[in-house]
Amino acid sequence: MAESSILEKLIDALRCMPGIGKKSAQRIAYHLLQRNREGARNLAAALNDAMDHIGHCQRCRTFSETEICNLCMSRKRDRSLLCVVENPSDVYAIEDAEYKGLYFVLMGHLSPLDGIGPEELGLDKLAALLDEGEIKEVILATNSTVEGEATAHFISEMVKKRNLHPTRIAHGIPMGGELEFVGTSTIFHALAGRRDI
Amino acid sequence: MAESSILEKLIDALRCMPGIGKKSAQRIAYHLLQRNREGARNLAAALNDAMDHIGHCQRCRTFSETEICNLCMSRKRDRSLLCVVENPSDVYAIEDAEYKGLYFVLMGHLSPLDGIGPEELGLDKLAALLDEGEIKEVILATNSTVEGEATAHFISEMVKKRNLHPTRIAHGIPMGGELEFVGTSTIFHALAGRRDI
Repeated sequence: MAESSILEKLIDALRCMPGIGKKSAQRIAYHLLQRNREGARNLAAALNDAMDHIGHCQRCRTFSETEICNLCMSRKRDRSLLCVVENPSDVYAIEDAEYKGLYFVLMGHLSPLDGIGPEELGLDKLAALLDEGEIKEVILATNSTVEGEATAHFISEMVKKRNLHPTRIAHGIPMGGELEFVGTSTIFHALAGRRDI
Repeated sequence: MAESSILEKLIDALRCMPGIGKKSAQRIAYHLLQRNREGARNLAAALNDAMDHIGHCQRCRTFSETEICNLCMSRKRDRSLLCVVENPSDVYAIEDAEYKGLYFVLMGHLSPLDGIGPEELGLDKLAALLDEGEIKEVILATNSTVEGEATAHFISEMVKKRNLHPTRIAHGIPMGGELEFVGTSTIFHALAGRRDI
């Protein structure tokens, strides 16, 4: 179709977002043009601002607009606890659960076939943090995938070598979950991790 | 959570798009920051460009970056046919079906309660087009909602008054559709519109 080429470029550009295909991109472009030009301009400014100013915290590697992020700077956090996660979005999820320690964000997981080794995950930085001496316990909260488990195992060895205490978050039945809809391996973990009541 | 405020602004700004809630906005923001900063900058530029340069075609009212859109300018179109649709996205859909005439885009439908009358839909412009004398048939392709039908009826009266030929697109069973999953009113239309074979 002989459509406006600027509009075509916008529809194309919108597809850089995960989960947005051609149809959704069209719908979004038309909606913004027809009903929310102010919002679109605002989004453009926010995108540029974020890409220009958001980098990684030099301490915990999460996204931050300052050299050291607010969480690492805060004096209210328990500095003896360090929670290791794969992604910045995991920090967000764990924060909601009222965790009060510090974080270390790997920005991925060990995946030798993709060329992601200890260096790419910043494990040298993690080692330096552990060597500072403040941290007592390292909570491994990587995902429960094959790669996540392997990464957790690798880091637990680093932690043990320094005579610190590595722990792994519990795996089991999710709250509100029903046994019949949960996979066998989850039930296996739930049984193995049973506790006295 | 003490999250970067620039990041929070980005997540908020992303929600101007239809179908994007808080969770999706977070996922998109993290994805762009982590994996596609180039795409995000590109999107920001495309958004600004579109909002600055895309207006409405002075003839058919669809989105256009020029005063008269490419479709209205084209010498290859059948100028005796005019298809009236509610939205620019409808033009896109009908173009895919190899329609070769011209369009008129209402940018909505009659809705007196919301203050949308003939003037808001540019029906004066449509009248002027009809009075030019080139158009012979007006295909009414507004949606088959109550408002869409009322709008089609209103415009068909305008067309008849000028001794031109108004037609309405066919309503019936969609191709590949199964009778048992189609609503009664659709079957009603399919029966009423039956043709000899």
